[in-house]
Formats: sequence, C-alpha cells, structure tokens
Amino acid sequence: MNKPTSQSEFETPKVTTGALPASRKVYTHPTADVSLRVPRREINLHPSANEPPVPVYDTSGPYSDPDVEIDVEKGLARIRTAWVLERGGVVEYEGREVKPEDNGGATGKYLAREFPTQNKPLRAADFDPTFTNGSLGESTSDRAGAGDPSSEARGNITEQTKQNRAPVTQYEYAKLGIITKEMIYVAERENLGRKEALANAAEKVAEGESWGADIPEFITPEFVRDEIAKGRAIIPANINHPELEPQIIGRNFLVKINANIGNSAVASSVEEEVEKMVWATRWGADNVMDLSTGRNIHNTREWIIRNSPVPIGTVPIYQALEKVDGIAENLTWEVYRDTLIEQCEQGVDYFTIHAGVRLAYIHLTANRVTGIVSRGGSIMAKWMLAHHKESFLYTHFEEICEIMRAYDVSFSLGDGLRPGSIADANDRAQFAELETLGELTKVAHAHGCQVMIEGPGHVPMHKIKVNMEKQLRECGEAPFYTLGPLTTDIAPGYDHITSGIGAAMIGWYGTAMLCYVTPKEHLGLPDRDDVKVGVITYRLAAHAADLAKGHPAAQMRDDALSRARFEFRWEDQFNLALDPETARDFHDQTLPKEAHKVAHFCSMCGPKFCSMKITAEVRDYAANMTDNEKKALNLEAEKGMAEMSKKYEELGSELYLSEDGTKREAID
Amino acid sequence: MNKPTSQSEFETPKVTTGALPASRKVYTHPTADVSLRVPRREINLHPSANEPPVPVYDTSGPYSDPDVEIDVEKGLARIRTAWVLERGGVVEYEGREVKPEDNGGATGKYLAREFPTQNKPLRAADFDPTFTNGSLGESTSDRAGAGDPSSEARGNITEQTKQNRAPVTQYEYAKLGIITKEMIYVAERENLGRKEALANAAEKVAEGESWGADIPEFITPEFVRDEIAKGRAIIPANINHPELEPQIIGRNFLVKINANIGNSAVASSVEEEVEKMVWATRWGADNVMDLSTGRNIHNTREWIIRNSPVPIGTVPIYQALEKVDGIAENLTWEVYRDTLIEQCEQGVDYFTIHAGVRLAYIHLTANRVTGIVSRGGSIMAKWMLAHHKESFLYTHFEEICEIMRAYDVSFSLGDGLRPGSIADANDRAQFAELETLGELTKVAHAHGCQVMIEGPGHVPMHKIKVNMEKQLRECGEAPFYTLGPLTTDIAPGYDHITSGIGAAMIGWYGTAMLCYVTPKEHLGLPDRDDVKVGVITYRLAAHAADLAKGHPAAQMRDDALSRARFEFRWEDQFNLALDPETARDFHDQTLPKEAHKVAHFCSMCGPKFCSMKITAEVRDYAANMTDNEKKALNLEAEKGMAEMSKKYEELGSELYLSEDGTKREAID
Repeated sequence: MNKPTSQSEFETPKVTTGALPASRKVYTHPTADVSLRVPRREINLHPSANEPPVPVYDTSGPYSDPDVEIDVEKGLARIRTAWVLERGGVVEYEGREVKPEDNGGATGKYLAREFPTQNKPLRAADFDPTFTNGSLGESTSDRAGAGDPSSEARGNITEQTKQNRAPVTQYEYAKLGIITKEMIYVAERENLGRKEALANAAEKVAEGESWGADIPEFITPEFVRDEIAKGRAIIPANINHPELEPQIIGRNFLVKINANIGNSAVASSVEEEVEKMVWATRWGADNVMDLSTGRNIHNTREWIIRNSPVPIGTVPIYQALEKVDGIAENLTWEVYRDTLIEQCEQGVDYFTIHAGVRLAYIHLTANRVTGIVSRGGSIMAKWMLAHHKESFLYTHFEEICEIMRAYDVSFSLGDGLRPGSIADANDRAQFAELETLGELTKVAHAHGCQVMIEGPGHVPMHKIKVNMEKQLRECGEAPFYTLGPLTTDIAPGYDHITSGIGAAMIGWYGTAMLCYVTPKEHLGLPDRDDVKVGVITYRLAAHAADLAKGHPAAQMRDDALSRARFEFRWEDQFNLALDPETARDFHDQTLPKEAHKVAHFCSMCGPKFCSMKITAEVRDYAANMTDNEKKALNLEAEKGMAEMSKKYEELGSELYLSEDGTKREAID
Repeated sequence: MNKPTSQSEFETPKVTTGALPASRKVYTHPTADVSLRVPRREINLHPSANEPPVPVYDTSGPYSDPDVEIDVEKGLARIRTAWVLERGGVVEYEGREVKPEDNGGATGKYLAREFPTQNKPLRAADFDPTFTNGSLGESTSDRAGAGDPSSEARGNITEQTKQNRAPVTQYEYAKLGIITKEMIYVAERENLGRKEALANAAEKVAEGESWGADIPEFITPEFVRDEIAKGRAIIPANINHPELEPQIIGRNFLVKINANIGNSAVASSVEEEVEKMVWATRWGADNVMDLSTGRNIHNTREWIIRNSPVPIGTVPIYQALEKVDGIAENLTWEVYRDTLIEQCEQGVDYFTIHAGVRLAYIHLTANRVTGIVSRGGSIMAKWMLAHHKESFLYTHFEEICEIMRAYDVSFSLGDGLRPGSIADANDRAQFAELETLGELTKVAHAHGCQVMIEGPGHVPMHKIKVNMEKQLRECGEAPFYTLGPLTTDIAPGYDHITSGIGAAMIGWYGTAMLCYVTPKEHLGLPDRDDVKVGVITYRLAAHAADLAKGHPAAQMRDDALSRARFEFRWEDQFNLALDPETARDFHDQTLPKEAHKVAHFCSMCGPKFCSMKITAEVRDYAANMTDNEKKALNLEAEKGMAEMSKKYEELGSELYLSEDGTKREAID
C-alpha cells in the first residue's frame, strides 16, 4: 500500500515560519533562575487603544521568532541537555542500532532518509537492563494468566527501589523536594499576565467554578513541584528531547491540547509530517502525538522530534505491530520492549500504553454497539484471545516502568476500552479499565514515573461529569487526558464540533489536556487545513474551560478583543483572534475595502445605524445622572411592574370563564 | 448604499429542491384527525443492515418532495386557511395598502417586484382598531415617563377581556380546553419514532437528565394543549401564514433551532433571501427570522413568507426605523403600530419586541465593556434618551398584545440588554430586563397571546445554568429562545463553535429554541455555505441536548449511524449524517475509489489492521464463554489488583527515604 518516497522527501522539509500578525516573541527571565528564557507572544494594539500589548501563551517555538534561523536539517537548539547533565544521575551510552524493521523494512527509494546528525542517548546511570531482559519477561508471561506480575520482578524491583537511587524523573525530583529548571520554566510560562489580571480585576479570580480544583493566584516553582510530587501534574520531558520548551499538564494549570499527526499505510510523507507538527504548534497545539503506521516510522519520528519545541507522544504498540507485519498474535514482550527503548532513545516524551485492557474485561465489550474502537486496545485484545493469556503490557508493567523511568518518559495510560458510540458510554468495560488504570498509576508512581490517564471518546453531555469524578477518585487526581468527548454520533464531517462541546465541558470539570478531533474524524486523514481547524476548535474549547474555571488571567484576552470590537478597532479584533487570518478573510468577503477596516460600522447594521455608536451616547447620559435621578427611576420601574403584576395575575385567572364561572367544554 | 436591483431579481427565484440522499418523504395521518398529512423523512439503509428505514424530523417542507411541483411564483399550498376558517372567530377584510415607505421608498429598477398574487388578510372578528388608534397611543405616551400603561387602555382592555370573546390564538383555544388541528399535527410530528424507541430500548427513556423538564413517553394532542395553556409551549402560526407546517416550541419537546437571514443595506437580493430560507430549512432550520434592513423589506418578506413551510419571525422595529430614514428619535407609536399591522397581514409568525428595555435600565449598561449590542435594544435606548420618556413598546404593550392576538402572532420578547461580551454576562442590566419580561409575559397571556422569551449572547460556561433557572422562574416556564451563548470572545471566524458549545449546554438545561450563529458572526454577512454550517452546527447542538435530556427517540439515529460505522456500511454512515454531502466528500478526499465505499477498512488504520474487525472476533469469543469462566476471570482480576494495590501503596510510601528515615533536603 505504501507509495514510493517522492523526490521531495529527499529535499529539506519546508516549514512555516515568521511571526503572527502584530505579534512579537518575548522572552522573560524567571527570578528563580535568570538564565532561563521563557517565551510568550505579545500582540500589539492600535495606538488609539491606549493599551499595553496583550500577552498570550505561545506554543509555536522558535519558528515564530524572526531572530532565530531555522534549519530543519540541524534541528532545534538542544538547550536542555545542559540542564540534565548538570543535575547528574544520567550517563551517555551507545544507543541501540537502528534496524531495518524500525522503518518497516523500507529500502532504497522507499526508505525515507535519516536525520543528518545522530546524538548518543542518555539514560539513568543506575538503569539495569537485566531487569527487563527477555528471560525474565518470558518467565513472567508464562504465568500471565494469573494477572499477577512476576514475583522475581517484584522482588527485584523492591530491592532496587528500596535503595536510595539518584533521581532522574521530574516526579522523583519533586518527591525529594528538589525544584528543577523545568519546574521554574513552566511556572513562569503559566503565570503569563496574572499580575495584570489581578491588578485590573481582582474579583474575576473568584468568579469561576473550578469544581474543587486548586488554582492559585500565582504559580510558584514550589507549587509546581508540589503538584508533581502529589502526582496531580506532569512535565512530559524525555531527557533525550532537549529541544523541548517545557510545559506542565495538570488540573490546576491552564488546559492544554494535543494534536495528532502521523502518516498511515495509505498516505503522506516525512515532509508533510514535520510541517504538520510545526503547523499544529503554530496555531496552538501544546503537544503532538505521532500516530504513524506503515513504513519509515523511525526516520519520520526522528525528523519530527529533532525539530519539535513541544512534547511528542506515541503509541509504541503501533510500531511494534509493524515489526511483526501487522499480525497482532505475533507480538512479544521482547519486540515491544525493544520498541520502547528505540523510542526512549529518540526522545519521545510520553507513551500511550494500554495496560488496563485485561483478559478479564474483553467479554464486557461483546454486546457493545461499536465494540473496541481503540486501535491499541483491540491489538491487545486480539493478542490475549490468540494466546488466552493476560496482556504482556500488564504482566510486564513494572519492567515498562523501569525503562520509562530511566529516560523520564511519562505514562499516558491508554483507554483501550473507551466508548466508540453514545450507546456504549460509561459502560462496565470502560469503567473496569479505568479502575485498573488507577492501580497502575500507583505502580508507576512507585517506580518514579510521571503519569497521566486517557479517557472519553463518545459520551452524551449528561454522562460527562461522571467520567471526570470517577477518574479523579480512581487515579488520585493524576492528570486526565481526554479525546473530546463527542456528544453525538450523527454529525460525521463536524466531529471537531460535536467533540469540541464535550471537550469544553470536561475541561471545565477538570480534564488537564484535550486531544483534538478534526473535521475528518471517522472519514479520512486530516490535511493541513483540517489540522488548523481542529487545533483552533480545541484552543477555543480549552480557553472556554479556563474562563469557566476562573483562571486569573484567562479573561484578559476576551476583554481586550471585546473592547477592540466595541471601538471598531477591526485590525485589533483580527490580531487578537485565535485565527487572525480567517477573521480578516471573513470580514473582507463582505467589506473588502481597506477603508472599511477603520469604518465605524459593520456589514451587519450598515452605515445608517449602529448599536455600538448609541452606547457611547448612553455613557454620556449616565455620566450626567445624579444618584437621586437613578433612585427615582428605579422606584418608577418597580412601581409600574408591581401594578402590572398584581392586575394581570388576577385578570389572567379570570379570563375565559363562562357566565356560570365554569371552564368551557372543548367543542372541537 | 443600496445596489440597484439586478435583472435576476426580476426573474423567478431559483430554489434548491429534491430529496436528500437515500431519503423518502413520508406523510402520516394522526388518528385524532386522519385528514392531516404530517411529514417526516425516512432514510433507507443498505439491505445488509436488515434494519427498517430511520425516521427523522423533517423541516424542509415540500421542496424535498419529488411529487410536489414547486412554483415560487405561486407560493406553497395554503392548507391552513381552511383550518382557520372552519373554527371561526375571524373575518377576511381589505388589507392595508402597501406604501412606498414599506419598501424604503425604492422605485423603478431599485424596487424589487411584488409577489404575483395578493390575498386578503384575516383577523379576529372582534378586533377593535380604535383601541390601538393613534390618539390613545399619544395620550399614553404623554404619561409614558410614569412607566405605567394608560388607564384608559387598561380599563378598555379589561372591558374587552371580561367579555367572553371567541378564541383566535392557539393559547386561547388551549385555555378553553380546545384541541386545534395544529396541536394534533405537532403531536404527531414530535412523536416521530417514539414507538420504535420504546419497543427497542425502553431503559433509554429514563437515561437522560432533564433538569426538571416533563418529557412524556408519547406526545398526545392533549399534552400539547395543556403545555400551551400553561404557557410552557407555543405554536407560532399566524392565521395569515397558511403555507406553514405547524411546529411546537417548548422545553418538553424536541429542541428547535432558528436561522437568521435578511438583506442588509450593504448586500444581497430577493432571490438570495428566498433561496437562503429554502436552503436553511433543507438542512434543518425549524424557524427562520428575516432581519432585513434597507430597501425592499416588504416585497422581499412577501416572497419569503409565501414560500415558507416554517414560521417566519421578524424584528418590526427594524422596518419601522427604515420608515423614519434610520433616525431612531423620529420613531413614533403610530409608525410602529402601522408596521405591526403591515407584517401581521403578511403572515409573520412571531415578532421580537424589546419592550423590556426600560428607561430605568439604560444607565445600568454604561459601565459595560460592550454596552448595548442588541440592535433593537439600542434603537429604543436612543429613542428614550432623545425624549426622556419610557419606551413606547412598554407603555403601549397592551395595544401591541391586542394587535398580535388578532392574528395569532407570537411574542418573542426581545433581550435588548443581552451581554455582548464575557465581561458583561449576567449583569444587573441583563437580569433587570429579564424580570420585566417576566411581567410582560403575564400581560401578553392575559390578552390571549403566545409568548417566548429571548436570552443569552456571550456567557461563560459557569454562568449559563443561572440564566436558564432565572428565566424559568421569572417567566413561568415560557419557552426560552437563546442566541448561543458564545462561551468566549476570542474566536471570531469560529463563533458558530464558541456558541455551539453554549447552545448545547443551555439546550440541555431547558432552552426550547436555539438561535444559530454562523462563522461570519461579528465579521460579515453569511453566505450560502455559512448558513449551512451554522444550521448543521446548531442541529447537532440541539440533538446533543435532546440526547442529554433523555428524549425517548433521540438516540435511535445515533445508534443506527454507529452500527453502520461499525459494520463499514459507508453509504449508510453518509446518508444518516446531518450533512451527507460533506461526510461523503471528506471520505472521498482520502479514499476516492468507489471500491472503498464497501471496503472493510478505513484510511485511519489502513488495510492490514482494523480494530473493528477484531471486535467481531471478541464477540465469537464471548459467545462461547460459560458464566463460570466469566466469574473465574473476574476473580483473577480482582485478586491481581488487590495485591498490587496493597503492595505499592506501602512501597510508594517508603520510597525516597534516606537511611535515617527522614525526607531528603532539596539540593538544587
């Protein structure tokens, strides 16, 4: 099914660069570590506004900084390497050899070229390969049916963990009370504009309904550390992804969004994938998952990670499946483990691992309308049925923890049994898996790993809140990462919207990261425009959630844009929009002339009459009113209403009585 | 600003006709009156489905019925005239002369041509023009400042209402216990598929959360009558709009949506407006509001109403303003009253009347970020400021009731002070007006009128429910009709989505009708594609609300589509979608070949592996399991989890202690 690699794939991928309209990339230096440069975007307003530039969270990395020369061949600057080496506990080593099967056996013109520079990977100095070696794995899976991880393994790991090993992961540092540079960085990044917000509109802070979240007025590095230590937040940051601009995911921080990219067996190329990542982050994707299947997975991923300022997530079972020619029953722990190490060394920041899909739950999906719709979930179901054994992801879970801990790869515990239709929402299969994910969260934490939990799918509005509450309870408030949910099944082609509704709601209820859905969901592969529409839709859903939760600074951008709208500063309205290009284009379709950009009317009302103009007059009027006049008016109003009320309740109750006072009979 | 009328406007408007894919127009005959023909659409499935056609609510009128010959020059069949005459109480009379100002003084090539046939209007036989004549009006507005409707008027109307006058409006019939043909018609229409739903999945009926709504398993004509008599539902149906297919709006019925059309001073033509109405109803608009401004309003509206199978609403103050050359302070009760009668005679089904914007409330908007954004609201504010008098819509409210009652035009009490930004949501101005609308609801009911209440605008998620609860309380459960609400201000170009989120939520909480927002909101005039996107977005939001409220039949379509998706019946998936064309088009963009329409894989996973295939195997597996096997598996699962849980809570708590058992100090 794979098309040959086109000539273009042997040329340098072209990516989108340059500042957004009226925007300037600004770097601030947190007082806790002035050596750090934390990016944000500032949107300049028209002089007539007499307002300072509006600061906004910036996920776009160096690509939107005109002062940075982008060379996709070299990749982004590897800033974090120094941070990681300086705190120690890691060693550089000879990485695993790239094997033909890593690229699906692609050769010659079918093989996408390698990324030009190779770097030696880092891992925890105390990492013990023998603990995860095949023999132990086998002995475990022999007893897999018992659903009871290998006692050697447990003994083994207990020995290790009882030692005082040097911290490697953000979770381990946080537990030890150590504040890392990443923690300082994300605190500064999250604080964006909070001072201004509190200065101008303190009462707004209290205005939201956060459903029990704990959102402080200011984010301090210590607050970040404490949230991570409690397992309530994570900073996905593989020590082998030093190009990363760190970011935090947790219920008490701004809601994040994820965009999925990835070539499939049927379409797309290296060039497209790198540009998709850059394109998605330009419009606001905080995270990108590479869900590639088919050939060239390894090389494509290398290009993406070396050029990515945001965390990259994967579902390793996808690549493992390719290595056994797509035959699920041929999967083994060894192939999977080898794939984990391959991806850990490349710098993948989080893995979706469907370890909660257990043999005991498979039959619970039999009567569903749409069965098992998660790809990873169904791969493991197939394997378990073929071998009638417990999932090796479950029986080898501790070995997986040890591998991921050695590189600080975060867990995204997959929801392999998520509902694929309204009919299957919140059923026993979905919740049984969630309960298991809660147990596995504890195991992963015990091994020093960072953890988030995947959820929803298709869920009607009245069943969304239950999902959030159960996840918080079962998983000890570990960050929830949900797909949508889609609130109806009947709008293919518009599922970015059916799911944007559910995403905004579950984000409000407490979900930390929203996985986007594009208009092509269920129908095809998203193209460039679909990715943008999906990202903008989820950006606005996440922002609606931040507003409703009462994030101190969230409303600043809404207020700035609304003032611009009210004052007919059209350019400012466009520039403050999540998608300035589309806003401008839509305006131009009706009023193309440049003059209209400053015109004090819009196409909705026309030039003769404008409601906004009148409001200006209202202000003069109110400004000249005395308090007594206001009082008098209010009295009038109440008097008038009281009279009406009294009179017409009485009158209404009398109406339509016949002479003898009884209700008339129906005559139709 | 008006462009000359183009030649095309002198040709017959072209409208979209024909059945939707795989769909058939079906008419059923309610047992309560077999003479009625109630339309619905049935979507046929592929034979391999072994399922009956899926019935769906059909707003598209005769345009989607291949057996009906459409002639826009003649208009639709005037079926309801016989219903109205048969029950009596009305007279035909010489209608008001069309005046040049009705079309904004347009002449010659600037004047859009008249609709070919004129019909004499009907009105209540007991209608008393003298009650609403100018002199009384004047004497009232002289004392308008008092905020206290004319005592003559009250005395006057009391005399009238105390008599036993013959019913004209659906509200009057309902109050008298009389079931009209319209009530039987809408009951049949709402029941769509309920029998099947209850037969197949009775438990689903109870599954929703309706927030205190009273949704029966079956809708009977008597239930409809009772809901209307209680003021909890309306059937907008002007006796002069006999082309209408009646429809009910109320919290205990399916959620309806409205699409706005209308030429403005700056753009569009008669032809476009008629086609916009047909186009909007084809995709699911239950109602259409004609918000035209500028010239040719009268003639454009005539073409729309004569060809409209759905209720048409207007904001009469817009046309009144045109009659005084757009100068708000020149508005008078006489001009407004004349405009009401003009539109009543044409057959407008509901009027937005901003009678709740009172002099006493104007100063409450002075400190808003976006002041008064309702056009009608700001027109009246301007008038009140200019004259320093109470609004004539308030002081003459009873006269307005008498006029609307005579034609059974429903009130849509306008929210002239709705918030235009997140910052202004739920403020005193908004809620003061809502309290007044509650009082006016009682007045209108006392006069025999049907009433719904307009609401929201821009409201963050955590403030939406308060709106619904206050409206139900203040307005005695009169149907709520809300714009959006938009849940953030920062996404111009995507406000169909920012508002679709709020619309789905407030629809769930109890709003009876959702006024759509198109992608062009705040930016320009919607074109044909924008109208479609707006309608589909609101259709899916309304459906998400119906699902969440637990409407008995709502989930049938989701389940049918999900089964089709699961079984790779691509054609059925497209045909069951709200927008079959877009769904098919998106699929074709990735897999254009016809063969792929029957392929048992999709572009997301490719041909090698498919999660849905695997689920089929899961079913065989589960089918062959004994109960004991299932029990055994569950025990295993619980045992494994219990052990892990115990072990790792303990282990976790031990981690990272130094030899002396104390927590290590931070060293960074």
